Amino acid sequence: MKKITLPLAFVALSAGLALAQVQPSKQTPESTEIWEPVPPVVTPGVYSANTAGTTPPSDAIVLFDGKNADNWVANKGYNPTNSTDPLQWLVKDGVLYSGKTSSAMTKQQFGDMQLHIEFQTPPKVEGNGQGRGNSGIFLQGRYEVQVLDNYQNPTYVNGMVGSIYKQAIPLANPSRKPGEWQSYDIIYLAPKFNKAGLMIEPGYVTVLLNGVLVQNRAAIRGTTEYIGYPKVQAHGKGPLILQDHGNPVGFRNIWVREI
Amino acid sequence: MKKITLPLAFVALSAGLALAQVQPSKQTPESTEIWEPVPPVVTPGVYSANTAGTTPPSDAIVLFDGKNADNWVANKGYNPTNSTDPLQWLVKDGVLYSGKTSSAMTKQQFGDMQLHIEFQTPPKVEGNGQGRGNSGIFLQGRYEVQVLDNYQNPTYVNGMVGSIYKQAIPLANPSRKPGEWQSYDIIYLAPKFNKAGLMIEPGYVTVLLNGVLVQNRAAIRGTTEYIGYPKVQAHGKGPLILQDHGNPVGFRNIWVREI
Amino acid sequence: MKKITLPLAFVALSAGLALAQVQPSKQTPESTEIWEPVPPVVTPGVYSANTAGTTPPSDAIVLFDGKNADNWVANKGYNPTNSTDPLQWLVKDGVLYSGKTSSAMTKQQFGDMQLHIEFQTPPKVEGNGQGRGNSGIFLQGRYEVQVLDNYQNPTYVNGMVGSIYKQAIPLANPSRKPGEWQSYDIIYLAPKFNKAGLMIEPGYVTVLLNGVLVQNRAAIRGTTEYIGYPKVQAHGKGPLILQDHGNPVGFRNIWVREI
Amino acid sequence: MKKITLPLAFVALSAGLALAQVQPSKQTPESTEIWEPVPPVVTPGVYSANTAGTTPPSDAIVLFDGKNADNWVANKGYNPTNSTDPLQWLVKDGVLYSGKTSSAMTKQQFGDMQLHIEFQTPPKVEGNGQGRGNSGIFLQGRYEVQVLDNYQNPTYVNGMVGSIYKQAIPLANPSRKPGEWQSYDIIYLAPKFNKAGLMIEPGYVTVLLNGVLVQNRAAIRGTTEYIGYPKVQAHGKGPLILQDHGNPVGFRNIWVREI
Repeated sequence: MKKITLPLAFVALSAGLALAQVQPSKQTPESTEIWEPVPPVVTPGVYSANTAGTTPPSDAIVLFDGKNADNWVANKGYNPTNSTDPLQWLVKDGVLYSGKTSSAMTKQQFGDMQLHIEFQTPPKVEGNGQGRGNSGIFLQGRYEVQVLDNYQNPTYVNGMVGSIYKQAIPLANPSRKPGEWQSYDIIYLAPKFNKAGLMIEPGYVTVLLNGVLVQNRAAIRGTTEYIGYPKVQAHGKGPLILQDHGNPVGFRNIWVREI
Repeated sequence: MKKITLPLAFVALSAGLALAQVQPSKQTPESTEIWEPVPPVVTPGVYSANTAGTTPPSDAIVLFDGKNADNWVANKGYNPTNSTDPLQWLVKDGVLYSGKTSSAMTKQQFGDMQLHIEFQTPPKVEGNGQGRGNSGIFLQGRYEVQVLDNYQNPTYVNGMVGSIYKQAIPLANPSRKPGEWQSYDIIYLAPKFNKAGLMIEPGYVTVLLNGVLVQNRAAIRGTTEYIGYPKVQAHGKGPLILQDHGNPVGFRNIWVREI
Repeated sequence: MKKITLPLAFVALSAGLALAQVQPSKQTPESTEIWEPVPPVVTPGVYSANTAGTTPPSDAIVLFDGKNADNWVANKGYNPTNSTDPLQWLVKDGVLYSGKTSSAMTKQQFGDMQLHIEFQTPPKVEGNGQGRGNSGIFLQGRYEVQVLDNYQNPTYVNGMVGSIYKQAIPLANPSRKPGEWQSYDIIYLAPKFNKAGLMIEPGYVTVLLNGVLVQNRAAIRGTTEYIGYPKVQAHGKGPLILQDHGNPVGFRNIWVREI
Repeated sequence: MKKITLPLAFVALSAGLALAQVQPSKQTPESTEIWEPVPPVVTPGVYSANTAGTTPPSDAIVLFDGKNADNWVANKGYNPTNSTDPLQWLVKDGVLYSGKTSSAMTKQQFGDMQLHIEFQTPPKVEGNGQGRGNSGIFLQGRYEVQVLDNYQNPTYVNGMVGSIYKQAIPLANPSRKPGEWQSYDIIYLAPKFNKAGLMIEPGYVTVLLNGVLVQNRAAIRGTTEYIGYPKVQAHGKGPLILQDHGNPVGFRNIWVREI
């Protein structure tokens, strides 16, 4: 490991002030942001996600078909804890809208899977960076594929739409315009853990966003962390969690095929 | 991503002192330390690394054969920058000892490879945690396989001997005692980058430490960083760098087979 | 390896006839057919491939856009040999139809890529097994993703639509009915060879057929062979080849994104 | 796939006639032999396998320690069928010698593992090609890592020592001389199958032979077959099987670490 180089600010403070109470050792969210290289912008093709009538394959487990949120419960935090709290998200005109009080967690749990999900960030643009159309899809309740309105809205590249949040930069930015429906097609292989709780194979994830490859079997190092490093925690099957981030992001046509 | 919760220290400081200039947002090394799960301790077998007369395969590029350090130059920092500075490390009794003024970098550059290297942490134990027998092997000058005296010397698990430093926890801790020779056998596949400088395949590394598997084709996310997250920087072939960390760690029998 | 167990037929023949001239060493195509396990039939969703107006992403190399076959030449055999022979395939109503005199090979060569291609087996069903709606997509001119009318038409499973021909059985059979447009979305990582011409990383291919995962990063062992085993032949970039198999299979909307 | 050409033999036989010209449709072993590219010959270093006193790591399951074959039973064929038949192999001077009546199968079953095994082909050279010092290590009783005296003894490259028999050519030929002890260090990840019995992840195997990398996470396509293609058969844990091939090959220091 590298030697400790005390940050200038810390040195200055140490020298000049009584700093028993200063704790510069706190990591902040910015510490784990990466800003380059910037994935190229790609205009996706006119794809099914914008087409009425897209339907799931016959062997899919349909998690949301536009009618109700019966397959979901409320989840506080981003861990796949047990919950029987009813979900308060709005279902309207065939769309499931993220709410402000909790995330949405499937009742059913999954391992290896193909996942299809469509999302719509708000047509009326508000905020910027991570504050615009932010949500997320937590695979097995732990590993986040970022949802964000990234259309002409720069942010750190390991937090872009199509990223494995703070772990893997997407290969492209094929964002559609705010208010347009976008699609994720995700192939996910669950991690393998041994008796000691150590990861002998990482989770692997391949992601198409609007039909464009953004992750090529990216290895998932551990849990998605806002601050600090991914953690390794052995687990079995887990639910999908859709994140509430305070922005009303719509979802539709959510299905899983166990593979 | 998760919402920002201001750290208490920051809030307290902001409220209590005029600290506009304080930047507690600096990440510190501790921020990216992981402390569990702890890999099991394994006593390795009596292996060749302790045996006189171990020799490289016939197609190996021998980087150090005990006689001199002619294949190496001095390197400041842990980046594979050009250097023609002569290396000041001590060669004695067939051993190359890390010095205090620079790291050691090979003149030759490598891509995919099998690497064998033997190391010896100081017989006289001094310091603890990361301060005991610390060095490192930087693959392509960027990705560190940690060297540390981890014999009855706990540290954060993503910084243990056998770890990909701050990226991948080892599957076991087969450390030998201080002063005993230990061996690394490493299989390394270089990452692939595309025209945009994005990583389409990560580097992969498999590591045997003293004959015990400690990394199983771990995917390397990016550069080894003491503070913050791995960075993605496209590159071609790169040198090996042996880290100087202020501890006199010995090396011998260093060879590479290009694969 | 296993010991030779003489086939009964051979023994019987040996015993009953003078068979010095018998040459049982000829392998036939059937020798390398695998008939189980049979992938489950899946009815795919109503997807874009059946929708007029599907367009490629902005960074795609469009190989066929419905107007002409200018990006293609004729190819005899299934090897990526040089050719400047004009392609004799029919272009009609925006569709490129396989002909009877040659395969179609792109002028451009590719390495790692995302490939989209849509195909239509003949609406009028003729033949069965491998004789119905047979064509193929040869990645880098060497590795075939099978095209076949497999709708209620059994064949050996390593030769089904969605298979890597005679190498990898598909995970499902999401065939559409004859005459319906079907789509392939393929993520392909080219194999890596070393100086000795040996394969240090296989080609990897992930395939969605009609939106359903049929290959999950299948490792490609070598060239597609009708008789015998895949061969390892080092190569650089290579063209796409669409196979002529005597059945008039239609293609449209063919594009590649280099990744 | 390529067009079907009915084999002459079939036509002739169908006609019910003269068999001199018969070319039986039976595949023979030769059909699946590959003869190039030829892996380079490498002289391995003086390694532990030739050193007295090599011992297993403390967490290893020792399968043969030189004293007796109590952990083994007899196995007919190369499938991991149940057996309680006592093994008739000779144990002499700390070595387990393959016999002539059966293969040797462990009582214990394994999944993911690190395997160490040492072998010695007969000092007195007899036979050639596959007939010299032939044995094999069947991982999970199904997937063979070839054992062969390949020292100055050419054979088809997908059947060489270090090959995954008839599936993966080794990257080098680091054979020691007949009668010298050689070592295999093998890292094996078991394949994953889904409910339909299809393989969603292949087995992966990395192999060091005499300390030289000969397989780099080779994907195992299916069962080892002497004639025809690998088969996909879902299974759980399985035993190790050491093949009897009629040559007295010695084994010692066999241990497994579950990973």
